[in-house]
Order: sequence, then structure tokens, then C-alpha cells
Amino acid sequence: MALTKKPVNGMRDILPREMEIRDYVTGVIKDTYRRFGFTPMETPCMEHIENLSSKQGGENEKLIFKVLKRGEKLRLEEAKAEEDVVDFGMRYDLTVPLCRYYAAHANELPNPFKALQMGSVWRADRPQRGRYRQFTQCDIDIIGEPSNLAEIELILATTATLGQLGFRGFEIRINERRILKNMARFAGFAEEDDDSVFITLDKMDKIGADGVRDELLAQGFDAGAVDAYLSLFSGLSGRGDVALGMEFLEKTLKDALDRDAADNLREIAAAVDAAKEADFTLVFDPTLVRGMSYYTGTIFEIAIPEFGGSCGGGGRYDEMIGKFTGRPLPACGFSIGFERIILLLTEQDFAIPQQPQKVAYLVEKNYPADGLAQVMESAAKERRSGKQVLVVRMNKNKKFQKEQLRQQGYEEFVEIYDQSGSDA
Amino acid sequence: MALTKKPVNGMRDILPREMEIRDYVTGVIKDTYRRFGFTPMETPCMEHIENLSSKQGGENEKLIFKVLKRGEKLRLEEAKAEEDVVDFGMRYDLTVPLCRYYAAHANELPNPFKALQMGSVWRADRPQRGRYRQFTQCDIDIIGEPSNLAEIELILATTATLGQLGFRGFEIRINERRILKNMARFAGFAEEDDDSVFITLDKMDKIGADGVRDELLAQGFDAGAVDAYLSLFSGLSGRGDVALGMEFLEKTLKDALDRDAADNLREIAAAVDAAKEADFTLVFDPTLVRGMSYYTGTIFEIAIPEFGGSCGGGGRYDEMIGKFTGRPLPACGFSIGFERIILLLTEQDFAIPQQPQKVAYLVEKNYPADGLAQVMESAAKERRSGKQVLVVRMNKNKKFQKEQLRQQGYEEFVEIYDQSGSDA
Repeated sequence: MALTKKPVNGMRDILPREMEIRDYVTGVIKDTYRRFGFTPMETPCMEHIENLSSKQGGENEKLIFKVLKRGEKLRLEEAKAEEDVVDFGMRYDLTVPLCRYYAAHANELPNPFKALQMGSVWRADRPQRGRYRQFTQCDIDIIGEPSNLAEIELILATTATLGQLGFRGFEIRINERRILKNMARFAGFAEEDDDSVFITLDKMDKIGADGVRDELLAQGFDAGAVDAYLSLFSGLSGRGDVALGMEFLEKTLKDALDRDAADNLREIAAAVDAAKEADFTLVFDPTLVRGMSYYTGTIFEIAIPEFGGSCGGGGRYDEMIGKFTGRPLPACGFSIGFERIILLLTEQDFAIPQQPQKVAYLVEKNYPADGLAQVMESAAKERRSGKQVLVVRMNKNKKFQKEQLRQQGYEEFVEIYDQSGSDA
Repeated sequence: MALTKKPVNGMRDILPREMEIRDYVTGVIKDTYRRFGFTPMETPCMEHIENLSSKQGGENEKLIFKVLKRGEKLRLEEAKAEEDVVDFGMRYDLTVPLCRYYAAHANELPNPFKALQMGSVWRADRPQRGRYRQFTQCDIDIIGEPSNLAEIELILATTATLGQLGFRGFEIRINERRILKNMARFAGFAEEDDDSVFITLDKMDKIGADGVRDELLAQGFDAGAVDAYLSLFSGLSGRGDVALGMEFLEKTLKDALDRDAADNLREIAAAVDAAKEADFTLVFDPTLVRGMSYYTGTIFEIAIPEFGGSCGGGGRYDEMIGKFTGRPLPACGFSIGFERIILLLTEQDFAIPQQPQKVAYLVEKNYPADGLAQVMESAAKERRSGKQVLVVRMNKNKKFQKEQLRQQGYEEFVEIYDQSGSDA
């Protein structure tokens, strides 16, 4: 039987070393978020294909792994299009399932509902280095809290988790969809151009102010508007402190600034700075856009110095759940880049704290079977005391065997020989 | 947008209360198995469809959720059969993926490899009460250990885990494929009839000795053989102690008994009894068959008194991995019935031990935003001390809100009012 040994294209097996780190990180995440009152929940990995194709998923809807109908429902010979042969699909994120879950169970859930979801998602992306077609997402969401208490809790909980994992000196970049729009209006861009303007603005960290200017001009935008727009960003440079940034915008934009939006960011910054337990800086980043069009207010992103690019993010999406349930419901979420964090820790040769002491018992190959009971009893004693005890047969090449065990973290060795028989 | 709120047919959402129990049980399982030197590993949820259809999966191969090909590879108009439109399938167990994983990574893995796998599997079964089409399996396997050290470790680790979860007075039923065959030979059944004889024998606990007799006779087996067979089981009744059982078989079967098989069970029993940390009994059960035809030696099953039927099981399968890798490799595994354990604990209103103290802050609705920083700071202090602190807005019906929070386990309440303004 010749079987394929490789995992399916674009997905991967996880070896014990990485798996131990993943389990540790998962534990820290669950424990820390629980301290903040988030409750775990889970949905099936498959969803009705119509739910996944509802336009809430943006580009991800093109990347769905679809599940074939079964039994009598599958009529391959009559099929004209994919819809005819498919009923379920693999989820491409945890947000669509959360909305469905909330719609189905709202009566059984606390209000507000502080949800923690960790789970695999699937995207049929073209496979590429470091990007996989099955990966873990880790989301917290607060449904039903209209005030920025939600944002504050999400940022505090997420940064506390990162701190528990040993990250220091990172940034949470924050912005407001409303301020983003205020600035575009003030500069003179029309509202219908927001999407194209923001797509270009989003590249600021890559192509710089000049690059953004060139690209906006190339798109045919009015040079006056472009210059006015860019002068706002240069005025804000060095004003990453939220209070300073808001002060500048109040003075400059005057009535064009939504005071509620500015107050929102100020309040978040004050509370986060007062209560944070991790070592990080909250930074007002007027160029932060976040791709997903469903955000309605605050948006934020994690930037870890060791890791170029975002390591997670989120924001307020007050209209999305309403689209699913039929009645509007405020919601705000924060997603940690689980796979990126694992990658960072693995590359840093991360040592898991508070590991149990590891002992290996090497039992001589021809050790009499009736003596094994005693060996196991002694191992049991050590295991009960919390030690990790491996009981294995001694190899001919004992030295090599110990070397390998040392690589797995075993530091103490007990060699067990037969002392009863004539071989002793 | 009218979306389907229900999960896909036959799968289910997991509510916070159950999810907390699942997380707790998962933690206990991972911690306990680790003490026994098992290392966690993971494979993708999808496998190549050919790997899943290799006849190793028995009846489960009829229940595969199949994944549609994507892009240019999908040629629906030319498709004649399912094979033409499908390339991947959802795994229906964790054993086939383990074999593929081991074949792919043997050089990077310890020898013997003590693997712990926990993960979802999918079976397109007809939906029925208490049986779902996505469920969690929890397997430990030892690959590369030919001696019964493997069986001993698997039984000790699994029972220690059940003990840690609070189960007492349960049984591990044990048998040997070789003894099963010895008894059939001794009674006079032909080897080619083993499958039919064992399928009937497997029903002993349901239909009794008379039922087994009737069924064997109805199948046309020789009455002399049937009676000789049944007299063995009546002779063994009351000899659940492995040593007693083996003694009886040695006296009765004489040379028809495989002495290695009898010694195997005796050695396992001696070591398990000497080293066990949980409160359970190891019982020789000559009627234990275990369905999977790939078992080659020891087989075992968990029987928990509160739960009719098996709550997990396993055995030695020395030939299966060889079929995948091309060279024979001893292997032995034990699977805990994760979903059954969760069901048992949920029904018993299981209280998770060592839960953190739960405190709820109720913040008056119109509490000034600039005072929130102080509230969050105080919550942060309690959270850092390990408490679970929920910060929520106070509802109009405070009494009802507290009642609901009490149901979620919150016992301490802090009410926070605005004392600065004219409303105070």
C-alpha cells in the first residue's frame, strides 16, 4: 500500500517541540483571558456554505474549502455549478461563526458576552513560506457593550497575555475610523473616495509620505487635497501620545473633528495607561487603517519590535452582528496573531517556564519481566511527586540514547540492570 | 441577509459552561500524560483522500466528509464519479494520521515515540441523540516498543488521568487476541470462522451465554464446539483476576494456550497493580473482542460504572504502521472516550476544582468616563493577584443582573457609583 506521507498541500504536521510551545501559549492565553472574565466557546469547523458566502468575509470568501454533499443529496451527473454539489464549507475565520453562534444562543449567554475563541481556520490560499492553509486563530470579542469599556478591556487583556508570554516593549497602535474620515474630509477628499485614499494611506510605513503623495496624485486626486492631507500627518508626527495627538487635531481640524471620537481615544488611553500590567506603549497612529471594511469606530493593532508587521489587531464592528441577527448589536474584538507568536517564540528558542523535572529510566533489554512491577512502582512514586518520568528500554548504544534524551530535556537518568540472574 | 442560525446538521455549538469543563479536562489529560513522558503532536484535519480510503479505517471510510477540488483542478462538467472532484477528506480518526505522521517524520522523533493526540474528527454518520458528526478524540500511542512495557505505561497513564478527573472504582478490562484465538481453536472452531464467532461472542454482556449459544448454533456451528466454547467462559466466570484466569486456561487449554500471551497478561497485571495511582481494578475479560481487526495482541477497554458501555479502549496493533511505512513496527495505543467523559461530568454537575475567585464590578451606567481609569486600575490589581474580575455596566435591574452573574460563578460584587457630580 503506497500512501502519501506528506500532509496535504499547504498544511503541516506539528512536531513535539513546537507542540509543547503551542500548548504552553494556549494555556497562558486561556488563563489570562479568563482573569479578565472572558469565557471560552466553540463552534463546529464547518458552516453552512451560504453563511460563509454572505459577503461578510471579503476576499476570504474566494478561499473556502468546500465540502461535498453526501448520499442521495449528491447528484453529480446533474450538477452544473459548485453550488449544486456543496452544502458545507470550512470556516475561514472565527467572526462569522461567532455571529451565528450569538444569534442562535443569545438567550443562554451573559450580556455583555465576553467570548474567547481559539480554533483552526482554513483558507485555500496559494501555499507560500510561513503561510499555511490551516492555522489557528485566537479571538476575544465583547458583544453588547456600547461604551469603550469594551475597547479598554480588550486591550488590557490582550496586552496582559502578551506580557505573560514574555513580550516587552511592544506597541498597541490605535486609531478611530471616524477620525480617519474626519481627516480625509478636512483635507478635501470626497466621502466616496475614502476606500481608495485609505488603501494608499495604509502603505505609509512601507512607501513613506512621498510614496503616498505620488500614489494619490497618480490616482488623479487634487494636489491641494493631497498636500493638506499629508501636512496633517507630518503635523501629527511625534504626537503618538494620544492626548497630544487629539490636542493637535482639535486645534487643526476644529469642527471637522468628531469630539466623541477624540474623547473615545483619550478615555481608552487614560484607562489603559492606568491599569496596564504589561510593558508596552499605546500609540496613536493616524495612518492605521485595518483592512476589514466592517469596522465602525476604534481600530487597533499589535506591533512587536522583533516582528516586522502586525501581530494581531481588531476594532469595533457595531453593525456586523445586526446583519446576521436582524437587530443592531454593538461588538468589539481583538485577535492575537497566534501563529506569528508561535513562530517568534520558536525562532527565539523559547524555554517554557516551570517545566517539571524530567527523569528517564533506562531498563536493560533482558530485564526480567517479573521485576518490571518494582520499576514501575518507583516511577509511579516520582510521577506522583510531579516529575515527568520516561520508562524505556536501554539501547545498545546507551550513550547515543542519552544524548537524544537530553535533547528532549531529560537531565536525570536511572539505569536499571538485572542483578538477580547469572548475567549480573 | 437571512442566515442560518443553526450549526450544520449533526454538529453542535459548545456553550461556555461545557467549554470550561472541556478546557479543564483537556488540561488534566495533557498534564497527566506528560508526567508519563507522552509528547503532544498534531496533524492537519484534512488528509489525502487516498490515505483515508486505504481500508485501514473499516466502516469509517464510508463516512468521510470529502473536500471539493479547487480552481483549475475542478472540472465539474467532466466529472463522472466522486473521485474526480475530490482531493482531500476530513480525518475520521487519529490513527491513520498518526501512521502517516510517523512515516513522514520518524527520523525527527524519539524512539520509542510516545505520542499524545487530541483533536476533532469528522464522521458523516446519521445524526442521532448524543452522537455528533464532529467530536474530539484523545489518543495515546507508543510506537517502537515491542515489549509489554508499552501496555503497562498506556494503562497506568490512562487510569492516572481518569483518577485525576475524579473517577473511582472503575474497571480496565483486558484480553489478548491470541488467547481469544486459542480458546476458539480449543473448542473446535476453524480459524476462518474467527470473525463470525467473535462478533457473536462480543454480545455476551448484552445477550448472555444462552443468547451467544443460540446465535452460534443458528449460524450452523457444530453443537459440540459451541458447548465446549461456552463451558470455557463459564469456567472463567469469577476468575477476573488475571492470575486466576491464566491458571485456569493453562490447566484447561494446556498446549493449546499460547504461553507468551498468558505471560504477557500476567506481567501487565502485576506491574499495573504494583504501580497504579488510581482506584480501579484490572479485570481479565475473555469475552472482550474490540471491533477493529488490526489488533494483534493485548486489547483493553475502560468500563466506568456510572456509564453503561465502554468509555475508551485500545490495544496492540503491530502490523498497521508497517502497512503504511513498508517496514514492520510495533505499536500500541489507548484512546479515552473524551466526549463520554465530558457528558458524564456535565450530567453530574461537575465542579471544576481550584477555580479562581470570581469578582464582578458593576459600574453605574453614567459613570464618568474619566473615572474609569481608577476602576480599571483597581480591577487590574485584583486580576494580578489571580482573581477573575469582570467589569460590566450596571443594568437597571441590578438584582436580576446579579442573579445571572451568580449563575456564572460570580460570588463577590463591587458596585461603583459616580460620587463626584450632582447626581451623587
